[in-house]
Amino acid sequence: MATSKQYVYAFSQGSARMRDLLGGKGANLAEMTGIGLPVPPGFTISTEACNEYNAAGGRFPDGLVDAIGEYLGKLEAQTGKRFGDLENPLLVSVRSGAAVSMPGMMDTILNLGLNDQSVRGLAKATNNPRFAYDSYRRFIQMFGNVVLRMEHRRFEEVLERHKEQAGVKFDHELSPEILQQVVADYRVLVQKDTGEEFPQDPREQLGKAVKAVFDSWNNPRAIVYRKINKIPDDLGTAVNVQSMVFGNLGFDCGTGVVFTRNPNTGARELYGEFLTNAQGEDVVAGIRTPRPIAQLREEMAEVHDQLRRVGELLESHFKDLQDIEFTVERGKLYMLQTRSGKRTAGAAVKLAVDFVEEGRIDRREAVLRVQADQLEKLMHRGIDPAAKLEPVAKGLPASPGAATGIAVFDADRAEQIGGEGQKVILVRPETTPDDIHGIVQSQGVLTSRGGMTCHAAIVARGMGKPCIVGCESLRIDLTNRLFSAGDLAVREGDLISIDGATGNVYAGAVPMVDPQLSGEFQTLLEWADEIRTLGVWANADTPADARKAREFGAEGIGLARTEHMFMAPERLPVVQEMIMAETEEDRRAALAKLLPMQQSDFEGIVGAMDGLPVIIRLLDPPLHEFLPDGEELAVEVALLRDKAKAGDAAAGLELAKREAVLRKVRSLSEFNPMLGFRGCRLGIVFPEIYEMQSRAIFQAAVALRRAGRDPRPEVMIPLISEPREMELMRALVVKVANEVQAETKVEFPYEVGACLETPRSALLADEVARHADFFSYGTNDMTQTTFGFSRDDAEAKFLHHYINSKVLKDNPFMSLDRRGVGRILQLGNELGRKTRPNLKIGICGEHGGEPSSVEFCYHAGFNYVSASPYRVPVARLAAAQARVRELRA
Amino acid sequence: MATSKQYVYAFSQGSARMRDLLGGKGANLAEMTGIGLPVPPGFTISTEACNEYNAAGGRFPDGLVDAIGEYLGKLEAQTGKRFGDLENPLLVSVRSGAAVSMPGMMDTILNLGLNDQSVRGLAKATNNPRFAYDSYRRFIQMFGNVVLRMEHRRFEEVLERHKEQAGVKFDHELSPEILQQVVADYRVLVQKDTGEEFPQDPREQLGKAVKAVFDSWNNPRAIVYRKINKIPDDLGTAVNVQSMVFGNLGFDCGTGVVFTRNPNTGARELYGEFLTNAQGEDVVAGIRTPRPIAQLREEMAEVHDQLRRVGELLESHFKDLQDIEFTVERGKLYMLQTRSGKRTAGAAVKLAVDFVEEGRIDRREAVLRVQADQLEKLMHRGIDPAAKLEPVAKGLPASPGAATGIAVFDADRAEQIGGEGQKVILVRPETTPDDIHGIVQSQGVLTSRGGMTCHAAIVARGMGKPCIVGCESLRIDLTNRLFSAGDLAVREGDLISIDGATGNVYAGAVPMVDPQLSGEFQTLLEWADEIRTLGVWANADTPADARKAREFGAEGIGLARTEHMFMAPERLPVVQEMIMAETEEDRRAALAKLLPMQQSDFEGIVGAMDGLPVIIRLLDPPLHEFLPDGEELAVEVALLRDKAKAGDAAAGLELAKREAVLRKVRSLSEFNPMLGFRGCRLGIVFPEIYEMQSRAIFQAAVALRRAGRDPRPEVMIPLISEPREMELMRALVVKVANEVQAETKVEFPYEVGACLETPRSALLADEVARHADFFSYGTNDMTQTTFGFSRDDAEAKFLHHYINSKVLKDNPFMSLDRRGVGRILQLGNELGRKTRPNLKIGICGEHGGEPSSVEFCYHAGFNYVSASPYRVPVARLAAAQARVRELRA
Repeated sequence: MATSKQYVYAFSQGSARMRDLLGGKGANLAEMTGIGLPVPPGFTISTEACNEYNAAGGRFPDGLVDAIGEYLGKLEAQTGKRFGDLENPLLVSVRSGAAVSMPGMMDTILNLGLNDQSVRGLAKATNNPRFAYDSYRRFIQMFGNVVLRMEHRRFEEVLERHKEQAGVKFDHELSPEILQQVVADYRVLVQKDTGEEFPQDPREQLGKAVKAVFDSWNNPRAIVYRKINKIPDDLGTAVNVQSMVFGNLGFDCGTGVVFTRNPNTGARELYGEFLTNAQGEDVVAGIRTPRPIAQLREEMAEVHDQLRRVGELLESHFKDLQDIEFTVERGKLYMLQTRSGKRTAGAAVKLAVDFVEEGRIDRREAVLRVQADQLEKLMHRGIDPAAKLEPVAKGLPASPGAATGIAVFDADRAEQIGGEGQKVILVRPETTPDDIHGIVQSQGVLTSRGGMTCHAAIVARGMGKPCIVGCESLRIDLTNRLFSAGDLAVREGDLISIDGATGNVYAGAVPMVDPQLSGEFQTLLEWADEIRTLGVWANADTPADARKAREFGAEGIGLARTEHMFMAPERLPVVQEMIMAETEEDRRAALAKLLPMQQSDFEGIVGAMDGLPVIIRLLDPPLHEFLPDGEELAVEVALLRDKAKAGDAAAGLELAKREAVLRKVRSLSEFNPMLGFRGCRLGIVFPEIYEMQSRAIFQAAVALRRAGRDPRPEVMIPLISEPREMELMRALVVKVANEVQAETKVEFPYEVGACLETPRSALLADEVARHADFFSYGTNDMTQTTFGFSRDDAEAKFLHHYINSKVLKDNPFMSLDRRGVGRILQLGNELGRKTRPNLKIGICGEHGGEPSSVEFCYHAGFNYVSASPYRVPVARLAAAQARVRELRA
Repeated sequence: MATSKQYVYAFSQGSARMRDLLGGKGANLAEMTGIGLPVPPGFTISTEACNEYNAAGGRFPDGLVDAIGEYLGKLEAQTGKRFGDLENPLLVSVRSGAAVSMPGMMDTILNLGLNDQSVRGLAKATNNPRFAYDSYRRFIQMFGNVVLRMEHRRFEEVLERHKEQAGVKFDHELSPEILQQVVADYRVLVQKDTGEEFPQDPREQLGKAVKAVFDSWNNPRAIVYRKINKIPDDLGTAVNVQSMVFGNLGFDCGTGVVFTRNPNTGARELYGEFLTNAQGEDVVAGIRTPRPIAQLREEMAEVHDQLRRVGELLESHFKDLQDIEFTVERGKLYMLQTRSGKRTAGAAVKLAVDFVEEGRIDRREAVLRVQADQLEKLMHRGIDPAAKLEPVAKGLPASPGAATGIAVFDADRAEQIGGEGQKVILVRPETTPDDIHGIVQSQGVLTSRGGMTCHAAIVARGMGKPCIVGCESLRIDLTNRLFSAGDLAVREGDLISIDGATGNVYAGAVPMVDPQLSGEFQTLLEWADEIRTLGVWANADTPADARKAREFGAEGIGLARTEHMFMAPERLPVVQEMIMAETEEDRRAALAKLLPMQQSDFEGIVGAMDGLPVIIRLLDPPLHEFLPDGEELAVEVALLRDKAKAGDAAAGLELAKREAVLRKVRSLSEFNPMLGFRGCRLGIVFPEIYEMQSRAIFQAAVALRRAGRDPRPEVMIPLISEPREMELMRALVVKVANEVQAETKVEFPYEVGACLETPRSALLADEVARHADFFSYGTNDMTQTTFGFSRDDAEAKFLHHYINSKVLKDNPFMSLDRRGVGRILQLGNELGRKTRPNLKIGICGEHGGEPSSVEFCYHAGFNYVSASPYRVPVARLAAAQARVRELRA
């Protein structure tokens, strides 16, 4: 039953475009062959063959065996060697190669084709019996291990015995005769362990090796790797069969790995290592230390020069940094592999810019060359990658950057000690808005609870401070001011280090490297700005954050939260007075005290963004967040009551006060505060709060106008779920604006918009848009309500399990869920623009700085995304990439 | 500028169909005129005129004055009387009348047309000067009050002075001469208070009266009434101008109000009151006591007989119970008004059935004649409506019915005392699933917190027990076991009564009336069943509830919650053991103990519904609900720690135990449990829990099959937000079903379906439907997530404010929000049926028993609604009504 399907391709038949069919390695070998580079001839068995093999439960598709035989014949003709030949045997390597680079599959098999006959042929042809028998020994060992699944140590035991008997230390010290004896013993071992003879027929060897590669597609390591890296299971792997060349025939031979440029810095220089008289294996074995590639010039000037020209040719051809494997056989250079080289974030940026300046790629291609989220790494201090460090615990990497400081267990003390100039790391089970003052004075934050979007994570990212959250292996003991991790106990005052990019916690100080924002970094982002059409704004709550955001290229502030301003220590008592007020009159009195404070906040932040829009969100969180914790209060009250009963008069007095606060806390306490009395619900029930805030905003605008500045405040009403809410709150804001303009005789521009954070607001977006100049989706809350996931609870409780076991592909709080939340957003956009075709639409959740979410926003017709300041460059690049990809599609 | 628009209609020109234009009163006067009943002639000024008047800021539309004049002329011609005539003056009444009955607008003005001249004409025509001057006096007083807005007491003072001077007690004892003096004094008073003469021109009087009626549309009482009753503000009122007849010219005259049948019982008998020699006013004034209508037969047999015939004619004509106002002038009967009579729920049911049996209406019309939600009142004990009672507090009416019992402040004591046979009312700040055993043994529940859909409300409704929640004026002091309301303090053991239909709380016992489920009740519901196509199922957690639901006509159980079963006192320790387990093994050991208990639960409930489907929802609530309260534990631990420090060894031992529980409670505690680790998230992370429950369900099915029964279990996976969740959980349930069938060799039918409670589940319903035999929307949770409202928090914190100030029209937890939540449901239905055209779809939220929501479900293509047992009849009727309305449209 012959089939007409082509399963096998000679290197001379393929090309780089056939990556899906031939795998990355096979396609590039074919491409190099095609452009005339010295590639040892060979052929590739396609991924299609692999898939059919696996689909058939491990049976070769019809015709494959014949096709392999046919191409083997061609290879023999081309090389003038013959499989199993006694004089001049053909030896091949067999390597797996999927369309995407995928470690974890079958290792390479070298020297396939050796048997009791051809080993003599090899000895004769190379005039090197030691080499021939050593090669045969290695082949049996490799084949036994990866094809016959024998344990590696079984072979090692035999070899060690012979080395002992011979009284030598290294393999290469063994004589050809002893090696022959090793081979014989290996074959006995194979027979014993597998019940079968070691195959002597090279075609049988090859068939088994191909099967082993196919099977390795589904080995556990490969499956796990695909899962982690989100690689589809149905790609399959190709198999590359290539005639062997030898780097270990003498000192005019060698092998090496070279990058066409320095992958750490991007500098234009060959970078890599080589070994003379060696096969690739020897490098791995670690017996000999490879030498820097520069030294190759001294030993084989011609080869070094040729390598440089090949590298140049490959870069010109592939238009990217190449990672090359080569072998030199008797002074002749052979290319065994080329692929795009991995690189650091910094090198990626420099290479992209350099390649444009060298005329190899255009600017559009350049912006695609850097993974957008890599940029963030360039903007923070990091732990020296060269340092060998053992973390004491690992949490979620919530905000990148690294920091060292003394552990401090409460915000007040962090503020005090940090304020005195000591470097501190705030360590808490979790943080609340109460802790802001402590975070401000800390180098970084470490919590044992919470997920990537918990309070600590958001605040720290906003401030650009390193942060690790959900570090559940820490046992924090607040009473005794220490935490333990395994056997280690860290007391307050002990030095610790955290790496917010990895989630690793270290005891003591660690070596750091500083961030470098190179000229190329700026250039690349300028090109991104030329290309992108999506606006990039920033989330910032303070003038300092706003300035930082502007420096990073933000074109506006998409979210200035007003609640953090309420938390400042000198204001909190006034805020609490406002909350404890029993009448509107008392509440207004407290609000009047807050007005000038808020006005100066807004002058600061709107002033910092002079000429650019600043969206200020009116008070959003539930009021109880500004009061002490209920449980702590209850304990305090119970203890005071005991003392009072025992006759302690002072305790009795204090008891009454604390009981009053506890009553208020209880009356404000909610089962589900996220879905409770917050957002514009506060403004509807207590309009005087929003009135005060609006007045503060507009008086700030007047003050700035009078100072000759160009303020652009925009007022955002949070947590809309009903159009009427927007109608009422817009009317209130407009009323205040009119009053302030009338009182001051100063005109100023302003807008009033809606924060859409519940599904219902999007479902009724056509009605909401009647009263809104702009929409901003709070995608954190929208994700919470669309999924029914509380972000503060989900990650630690079940979301990690969901992601590990593939119930969900991604964490929807990190990467916007296009299938569900995305659909809601698109519906909201359509409905909103039906009412107002020019409605300005943005997002202000944490997703604004995540590349895949930015891409979604671009395609969904958003005007802008708003990201935390340090994510602004990421969003700029991601927005450009989305546009380039679309233009190309 | 004349206009051709018709603003005025003679009674002979109108009809009942012109209700919108002529108002209810005007349209019915016209209709009665049309069918030849003795209606004093007159005309109606249209609602359109009113709206134009109000739109123009209180100016008559062009042409209206002329039209009134023209119709007045016709009226003069028809009656042979003339406005202001010295001999035979025309007097008219002026009454408002909107399209919907609306108290709170302008009162009636009688005798308009009287002035210094015509009063003499009236005296002559009636040969009764006392009557004439008394009428004039009354007219000035009424006109002064309602048109000129003078205070009533100003006139009363004058009248009192004259009565004193004359030494008489009653108005009718005053002589014509004195009455003439009163009139003169009244006119001075008018001049003094208003600065203007009392108008002598009858046309001017009429014009002012019409304006006053129009203006009264917007008086505060009317506005409030419309708001409460959701009547649009733009209907406007008509004005009826009718020639006067007099019931007070002697003892062959009279006036009365009569219902064509008894509106309390529905019995076929005239029901009402009358007074001889009186105007309507006299009845209201309360000086004379009206007499039962039966006595009219003795005094005026002819009139009584005529009234019966008129009643019969009106019923035949309007096909409904009529509420009639009549006047008898010198032995002749005049009809002044007819309208559909208000009736009790019981009468409504009887009338609907009787009218069908009398051939007046068909069954479809009959089912429309009863407000569906009224039915519930017939099914519960109620407080005797005749009793005059003063409530001590008022909360939200969460579950209808009334109960008396002693106040008890915790569930354990309620269980104990209630179990001993005493009637108790459980009083708590709020209830949790921990309190179920206490609720079971209570007559009713009263809480100071929570909304209409809080835990106490749902559980009580499910059990058909009276319940009041959110009674915020109660100050509950659990420590001292008492509550206070105003000055009253109620201690544990004191008797209280609650009325769950009104939310009223009473001190002590109150008189009760028993429920009556009449034959007509059953008949009407049978007709509803013939008509409706929407299925009606019930939510029930126990065999007793299921039997009750079946008795009320449920066709299946749409929601059997399994968590209430976990709460039974003998099981809770095992459940807690399961939760405290640190390993899967320990957890499985605890679950093994629960298995037989759950199996017997399911045998009970599935058995009770033999032959009908029972949807069992697998465990849904967060696990911490089964553990003690964290705050209470924290207090306990703090106090124990103090004691232990002071050297109390026993406290030290206890401390360690309680600390362990506190740690678990803390590790399970969540910021927003509603959005947390619950629903199928439990089943995904701890599959062994759902495995045990599935096994219990299927083993129960096997046991029932073996007993020759017909079990129809359906397994529902709660809180789906991702299709993969459904896929995994369905696979788990099917695996267990296969195991049980293999082990027992017994086959049984079953289905596996999805509970859609988050917007995302509906957005991806096409994918969910691949793995679901049915959908059931949990509309409580869906409302929470779509709005971002926590039902436990919203009502007390802001939702009441939203509804009072019209931000939202209805409470979305009571009546399904069609604009938002409804849209999500419709989307889910469309997508789900795209995958499975025959997908069975229902709802199982609290909305299943609310008529408007039932109507929505019918139109949205649902297969069934599931309601709490006592709401099943409501849903049956509402489903039939929805279909009838659709067939008619």
